[in-house]
Amino acid sequence: MSRIIRVAGAQMGPTQKADTRRHTLDRLIALLETAASGGAKLVVFPELAFTTFFPRWFIADTQELDTYFERAMPNPNVQTLFDRARELGVGFNIGYAELTPEGKRFNSAVLVAPDGTTIGKYRKVHLPGSVEPRAGVRFQQLEKRYFEYGDTGFPTFRGPDSLGRAVLGMMICNDRRWPEGWRVLALRGVELVCIGYNSAAYDPNGGDSEDAGVRTFHSQLVAQANAYMNATWAVTVAKAGNEDGSGLIGGSCIVDPNGRVVAETKSLADEVIIADCDLDACRQGKEKMFNFAAHRRPHWYGPITGQVGATAPE
Amino acid sequence: MSRIIRVAGAQMGPTQKADTRRHTLDRLIALLETAASGGAKLVVFPELAFTTFFPRWFIADTQELDTYFERAMPNPNVQTLFDRARELGVGFNIGYAELTPEGKRFNSAVLVAPDGTTIGKYRKVHLPGSVEPRAGVRFQQLEKRYFEYGDTGFPTFRGPDSLGRAVLGMMICNDRRWPEGWRVLALRGVELVCIGYNSAAYDPNGGDSEDAGVRTFHSQLVAQANAYMNATWAVTVAKAGNEDGSGLIGGSCIVDPNGRVVAETKSLADEVIIADCDLDACRQGKEKMFNFAAHRRPHWYGPITGQVGATAPE
Repeated sequence: MSRIIRVAGAQMGPTQKADTRRHTLDRLIALLETAASGGAKLVVFPELAFTTFFPRWFIADTQELDTYFERAMPNPNVQTLFDRARELGVGFNIGYAELTPEGKRFNSAVLVAPDGTTIGKYRKVHLPGSVEPRAGVRFQQLEKRYFEYGDTGFPTFRGPDSLGRAVLGMMICNDRRWPEGWRVLALRGVELVCIGYNSAAYDPNGGDSEDAGVRTFHSQLVAQANAYMNATWAVTVAKAGNEDGSGLIGGSCIVDPNGRVVAETKSLADEVIIADCDLDACRQGKEKMFNFAAHRRPHWYGPITGQVGATAPE
Repeated sequence: MSRIIRVAGAQMGPTQKADTRRHTLDRLIALLETAASGGAKLVVFPELAFTTFFPRWFIADTQELDTYFERAMPNPNVQTLFDRARELGVGFNIGYAELTPEGKRFNSAVLVAPDGTTIGKYRKVHLPGSVEPRAGVRFQQLEKRYFEYGDTGFPTFRGPDSLGRAVLGMMICNDRRWPEGWRVLALRGVELVCIGYNSAAYDPNGGDSEDAGVRTFHSQLVAQANAYMNATWAVTVAKAGNEDGSGLIGGSCIVDPNGRVVAETKSLADEVIIADCDLDACRQGKEKMFNFAAHRRPHWYGPITGQVGATAPE
């Protein structure tokens, strides 16, 4: 069994509100086939990959909101992607809006093995945005309204032989900016983190704000440093470009356990990047510099779990 | 009172075992004067700034070991630096080996205000290296032998008006690679983190290892990403160059709350870098993207304080 697995990031260009599911599935399958023809065994797709990033809209009508959610995974509306992946013997990670039988809504991702079995699921913990719509602006960020906080924590999963028995972890979008999530995954042995995202390229309402260059820099910076500090591979994959009048950064990349970008997208469109990820390259970090058992001092980390907000000295 | 404070990083070239304290103090004072003439109000010096990085040697004789330690701070052997700083009205952060009246040894740093009063002290939490010397090699890393783990945790301190009432934090060398320390400082409101380091440029014993380029990249990467994720300024300052036959990286830099390097050294010698740090530039991150009270989910961070080492799934 090889511990070197070929991994792809399948960046998507924008998905407009008016796009049909059939059209989106065709794009996802084309990306999957490109990755498979390049020899990839695992393909990472973006967050909310089947739809536009709908939390930018205030949707008062529950029936309309429901059209963005999947009631099971897989389901007939996504089945062709799952079927094609199994045919090609390629695993994948994909983000979607989840509506559970109990009526709970999550921003979720599923990790599927090359043989079609489900390896794991994850529900986004770090929801950005607000519950109430902001008055007087065209574009919202209503993840806190449409989703509950994820209830899975940050689990890791042992992949199958076909994925080198990699210890796999998942995060979604804003999670990648929070070192706590990475650290919990690393404390559970993670060797490869799959991350999809939709990140604004600028303030769509025209406020004073960072430009796309700084935002793309931030996106890669957190992947690089957290990969290094946790001695893991990371694959971060965007939905990019002008989506329903709002810009999304690209900058999808594959990062090695030294924090170096080994592959990155050049466009804001559908684009596949591929890299051979040697899982044993995590060992140097995990056994030396970041040997947690030898060097961590949790006695002094209490505020991380003991308080939520910041408190400055008088 | 201005919230923009001019800060200097005073990188040192190597300090050889044979160098006299007088010679080293003269260098420190020259760096201080250069920083002051550039208008700096706060100067950050390296870790163990008064001596060579002695943990690279196995020193069996306690009397010899004691010569590297300070029994008080300040003391007659460092007083001229403290006096000159007060004359110039410049605050500073400096690392030293501390021997307490109770006989405890720490890798410490002290933060001194422009008027000469002590703002705070810190004792290094993340000691790298080993307790027992490695057999058959010339160079050791014996911090775990010569020092106790720091017992201060990661406190923050409110600086005086002359430093814009900045919320100040301190870390030492290897601490900067551990996101936990940064996060605890940020949970205590930190706006500027002072860090000194001595970091190997290569394996001095000739083992298979990363080169100085990768190691300098790592040093800057962790400062940049942790400054961004914690919405703080960071000043990281090396002792650099060939010290007693062992190479140390340079790469000292001042990083803004967006994770951008705004000043960095070009040499491996005594060199001062200066930047104007607008403390209010921390506010955007602290109030929006990294508004901890709004977005952190400590319920899922349990393993960070609940376990020391990593445990992978079967």
